Amino acid sequence: MSENQFQKLVSSFSSLPGIGKKSATRIAFHMLRMDHSSFQHWIQSISEARESLQFCQVCGSLTEEPICDICTSEKRDASIICVVEQPEDIFFIENTKEYFGKYHVLNGAISPLDGIGPDQLRIKELLKRIEQSSVTEVLIATNPTLEGDATASYLSNLIKAYHIKVSRIAHGITIGGTIEYSDQYTLGKAIKSRLTI
Amino acid sequence: MSENQFQKLVSSFSSLPGIGKKSATRIAFHMLRMDHSSFQHWIQSISEARESLQFCQVCGSLTEEPICDICTSEKRDASIICVVEQPEDIFFIENTKEYFGKYHVLNGAISPLDGIGPDQLRIKELLKRIEQSSVTEVLIATNPTLEGDATASYLSNLIKAYHIKVSRIAHGITIGGTIEYSDQYTLGKAIKSRLTI
Repeated sequence: MSENQFQKLVSSFSSLPGIGKKSATRIAFHMLRMDHSSFQHWIQSISEARESLQFCQVCGSLTEEPICDICTSEKRDASIICVVEQPEDIFFIENTKEYFGKYHVLNGAISPLDGIGPDQLRIKELLKRIEQSSVTEVLIATNPTLEGDATASYLSNLIKAYHIKVSRIAHGITIGGTIEYSDQYTLGKAIKSRLTI
Repeated sequence: MSENQFQKLVSSFSSLPGIGKKSATRIAFHMLRMDHSSFQHWIQSISEARESLQFCQVCGSLTEEPICDICTSEKRDASIICVVEQPEDIFFIENTKEYFGKYHVLNGAISPLDGIGPDQLRIKELLKRIEQSSVTEVLIATNPTLEGDATASYLSNLIKAYHIKVSRIAHGITIGGTIEYSDQYTLGKAIKSRLTI
């Protein structure tokens, strides 16, 4: 059993997020069992996809053009911008079919412990968009984590200076969930954010 | 958010064993965030490793040469062959540092439901090795599954015709495990295979 090249193959896969050594080993053997043309096809489709994808110059989301479909679309409501941490978050929000405005990707959240301050995020770009357009509401959809919440309040203070509405996605008990199994913080938020029915 | 090329990237990863759609999405974004040279390096190291690895012409294990280190080594006991289902099994057995003989990879186990009969496995190659060498024992280390057990008894009948010893790795309760949490089949096997101390 030759370990050098095989270990190289395994560590190429275990360097990917969420892949441990055991999964990487399984994937490596899968690769070795692929015939030559399937393997070449696999490598090629990854390379091609990667080369053709870029981040939108306006909102920072993933696109095949310099500016993404949502930014150029006239059907999307340009008066509201939804701020997310990562491009992938747009995916999940689009899936809900409940949001029809524009987006802005921060590329992270404020996290002093990781050395990420406001300057490392796409905040200046967001403020520039607010200044230069007719935005009337900014919906902050950062994650309900310490970092996401800190980023949300930091942004909220900045944006309020422009006298526009700032909103935050609601946190509460999950649809289909039960009160019994909600954690106390979520349940607390759900009570504080209660709606009149 | 462009879906076509991105979906291609995601499905390239979700085609790998043990990778679901959510993990594939995370990996795809990880790929897109890599700089060009790291990405090229990643692709290259996979391609190189794959091209330089092959299956040993004698035992069927993974090697960089036509015949693997274990098959060519004079330090390994040539009188015993350990039969495994997959090349990866050799890895785990080598890790135990308890086995010093040779190996033989079947490339699977007999499984009529999946259309895998003895002819699809490297059984003829095993019998040829037994005929042409001074093997005195064959240790069958197929998995303790229905298929692995069926393969073991099929092989055992074949090999006994050569009047050599056939053994099977022991099944029993795991080291560090408790009797309470052993399943009844394992516990039953552990009692049947009891050793005098």
